[in-house]
Amino acid sequence: MTDHAYETALGSSTKDKITLLGQDLAEDVMGTVGFGELAFWLATQRRPSKGETRVFEAVLAALADHGFTPTAIVTRLTYLSAPDSVQGALAAGLLGGGSRFLGVTEDCGRFLHDVLTTVDTPPTDDEGWDALALTTVENRRAERKFVPGLGHHVHKDGDPRTRRLFEIAAEEGLRGPHLELFAAIGRVHPRVLGKTLPLNGAGVCGAALADLGLPLELLRGFALLARTAGLIGQLAEELRHPVANDIFLSVDLNNRPVPPDPPA
Amino acid sequence: MTDHAYETALGSSTKDKITLLGQDLAEDVMGTVGFGELAFWLATQRRPSKGETRVFEAVLAALADHGFTPTAIVTRLTYLSAPDSVQGALAAGLLGGGSRFLGVTEDCGRFLHDVLTTVDTPPTDDEGWDALALTTVENRRAERKFVPGLGHHVHKDGDPRTRRLFEIAAEEGLRGPHLELFAAIGRVHPRVLGKTLPLNGAGVCGAALADLGLPLELLRGFALLARTAGLIGQLAEELRHPVANDIFLSVDLNNRPVPPDPPA
Amino acid sequence: MTDHAYETALGSSTKDKITLLGQDLAEDVMGTVGFGELAFWLATQRRPSKGETRVFEAVLAALADHGFTPTAIVTRLTYLSAPDSVQGALAAGLLGGGSRFLGVTEDCGRFLHDVLTTVDTPPTDDEGWDALALTTVENRRAERKFVPGLGHHVHKDGDPRTRRLFEIAAEEGLRGPHLELFAAIGRVHPRVLGKTLPLNGAGVCGAALADLGLPLELLRGFALLARTAGLIGQLAEELRHPVANDIFLSVDLNNRPVPPDPPA
Amino acid sequence: MTDHAYETALGSSTKDKITLLGQDLAEDVMGTVGFGELAFWLATQRRPSKGETRVFEAVLAALADHGFTPTAIVTRLTYLSAPDSVQGALAAGLLGGGSRFLGVTEDCGRFLHDVLTTVDTPPTDDEGWDALALTTVENRRAERKFVPGLGHHVHKDGDPRTRRLFEIAAEEGLRGPHLELFAAIGRVHPRVLGKTLPLNGAGVCGAALADLGLPLELLRGFALLARTAGLIGQLAEELRHPVANDIFLSVDLNNRPVPPDPPA
Repeated sequence: MTDHAYETALGSSTKDKITLLGQDLAEDVMGTVGFGELAFWLATQRRPSKGETRVFEAVLAALADHGFTPTAIVTRLTYLSAPDSVQGALAAGLLGGGSRFLGVTEDCGRFLHDVLTTVDTPPTDDEGWDALALTTVENRRAERKFVPGLGHHVHKDGDPRTRRLFEIAAEEGLRGPHLELFAAIGRVHPRVLGKTLPLNGAGVCGAALADLGLPLELLRGFALLARTAGLIGQLAEELRHPVANDIFLSVDLNNRPVPPDPPA
Repeated sequence: MTDHAYETALGSSTKDKITLLGQDLAEDVMGTVGFGELAFWLATQRRPSKGETRVFEAVLAALADHGFTPTAIVTRLTYLSAPDSVQGALAAGLLGGGSRFLGVTEDCGRFLHDVLTTVDTPPTDDEGWDALALTTVENRRAERKFVPGLGHHVHKDGDPRTRRLFEIAAEEGLRGPHLELFAAIGRVHPRVLGKTLPLNGAGVCGAALADLGLPLELLRGFALLARTAGLIGQLAEELRHPVANDIFLSVDLNNRPVPPDPPA
Repeated sequence: MTDHAYETALGSSTKDKITLLGQDLAEDVMGTVGFGELAFWLATQRRPSKGETRVFEAVLAALADHGFTPTAIVTRLTYLSAPDSVQGALAAGLLGGGSRFLGVTEDCGRFLHDVLTTVDTPPTDDEGWDALALTTVENRRAERKFVPGLGHHVHKDGDPRTRRLFEIAAEEGLRGPHLELFAAIGRVHPRVLGKTLPLNGAGVCGAALADLGLPLELLRGFALLARTAGLIGQLAEELRHPVANDIFLSVDLNNRPVPPDPPA
Repeated sequence: MTDHAYETALGSSTKDKITLLGQDLAEDVMGTVGFGELAFWLATQRRPSKGETRVFEAVLAALADHGFTPTAIVTRLTYLSAPDSVQGALAAGLLGGGSRFLGVTEDCGRFLHDVLTTVDTPPTDDEGWDALALTTVENRRAERKFVPGLGHHVHKDGDPRTRRLFEIAAEEGLRGPHLELFAAIGRVHPRVLGKTLPLNGAGVCGAALADLGLPLELLRGFALLARTAGLIGQLAEELRHPVANDIFLSVDLNNRPVPPDPPA
């Protein structure tokens, strides 16, 4: 070994054996470890329990596809334009997974985490969580900032994913501090904001991922993993029932040339 | 509805309900459908059996991470350079999933499929498969082309993933024509080529995916889905034990400026 | 120097000096070398003449922007979705620069080059070029393949860029064998195909780039360089007069959920 | 025209004419407008003067290539892995153009702009600029933040690009308020910080781009445009003298498998 030894606990191989995460890939991973379980394991380097895997896969399902989002349109248009490169079409779609559309998951998980680091001991009952949540929402209001994960432009009376993810986490005994705080925010925010907003699905997914101990810096990454499966679905549907060319033409044929417009 | 109605069977939502693949996302998918199962369903618009899911997830496990591949190095270096964009780091890594490193899976699946379309009725026993495989390998040799999926630069005596994937497929009753033909190629090619080469893991994965009825145009896509999980693992490891800067410096510090060298 | 010395004639630097292509960057490149000239120089490692730079920049101008192409739409939608990452928006747009939309430039340059390698001595007059072109078009027809660069869905009576690029190349004494052969194809193809098709702008750009001695493997790259400038223009316009959200909504609001549709 | 009319002043075409920025592309742009000039025009929708073009192209030259940066390594490795997709290799390289490596240009331009918006009338002599710069550096110090554009890990006694860009801007009468403030920061910061740091090249480029009136949100975009030319140069060199496989092997062969390491 030289000074350029690069350590990794992920994949490695010798002539007769392939190792992944310290396991024999062929004998102990293939056919035994599900894909969601493996993704969790790769990200944390510890094998999740069945309950953790179930919550994690529920999150991935919640985030996999939302129909004709910008990312889905982008993947279809890129495939139309460069059908020789499936990797390019998927990568282009993922590049839309930034601050606005997929960012809520990460923002919410980080936000809840930051609040939790301000308390020495987390609350142990709803009353305690409500008090912490009340301070939290009041502080955001004083800073004139939104509370991440609060509000949805379509599901105004409640995002069906939110209720269900709380339920699944409870069933598995995995309602940790991030989910508790998020639930409390849902209970108390009307007192501060004067109106009731739904806890959105992207936000509750961030809370659940944080409770699972996944790296906060990569919460967006799990949304992107889920979305990769969704984008493959979009491409498969595009192959059968193409719409990308119609989308392109609906824009191009409605272009209206105007004179250049330099800034004042 | 206008003439610009874009049909989709994937995600859609109303104020109170989110639908995915015709299912109620919250009630019937979250907490019930695993991530590998969902990815299969999204790509084919039909729910896979348990056996199909197991084979599919075994393929994803086989392809998820192979250590310091170019794609893994690229993702780590891109994250070093632009840590504000996890989506960019993942997308950059996936862009290496082209003809050379991840392409064997797709090439092998397509190749086997093309051979199978030349026969009216697939063989029903090993003897029949061997005859078809013999013609196949002879034809490739006559065309001076390689047989996709044959040979491995490290696992010269056999790729452990290959044997295992055949085993899992057999356990689930899913050894279809692509796997049968691939196995037969493994048996007969020494008669033509005069040497014994291993059936490699990337190739057997392509055969298995084709047998599962996944779209041939997107076989590379499943390798990319698997790799997305692997690349998140690479980023998580980079966060704990960074090596990207050392890799960068090992190249940059060993640069040797030379004069420009115009073509003759 | 170790065995890991990586040679480069491009950029390098010491404490007091930065070198690019063997030149002093600050003293001899900045303020002296134009951007098109520099891009040519970087790609060939030889400094182009003024005439070569003029032809090269004419090609870049021809390819920079074509309005609401898929690549432009993709860049705008990605910026809408991830405004924190300009690099992601540009990269996503470039990923559409594949075989279909930007590929003609490369395909045409390579095609002409391949034909030219079949002749020992290039023709020296129009008659000779016409004879070679006639054989070329006849061969393509016999193979039932299109001639790259021939035909345009809008400019049916002639692509204005084509005539102009021939003119500029002639003015600079740079009408080389690729352009000559392309021109001859324009003259003779009606005799074979029975109809007159225009030589399109993407094709003539490929011919001109090949005549300039730029690497054939990277002809697509120059189209992408031109397009990068165009995509920045698209983003700048999007900042002033946003349309991406309207494009997104025009698709999303016209989505029509349909039942899943498994393949037969 | 419907309600879906998408206005653009960039490219559009009719059967006989192609328009770009309100000009006849073939007649008035090709052969007349250089590539740097065109890129500026596309971004601002106003034609730059010769002096503006010269400063702009000097900036692009300064940023085009810095040897074996992470972006250059990424482009080469991606091309090694997926040689069928030049667009993927370039896009992957550009994705490293984020906050850390290419971000200084944008950060510095924006920072200077933000300071300038705090003063009603910009200073008119060095004394005035020095006073503003002093307050600026003191404020940053009080906030425990770095001054963007100050310091360089290699060019500790001065970045040769900085002096030269000031010179070129002065020659063209284009030393505007951003460059003046940046120069003043260079003069006064030792009084506050107690040591002399160089004004780096990336920073002065940001100041110059801001003085040219280019959109602040896209300053990073111009660094990416410059880098696109550099990355094509990297690929061209890789084609002649390949090093990507050696880079890959130098990492892969020095990998050291270690046990998984879950967080505490």
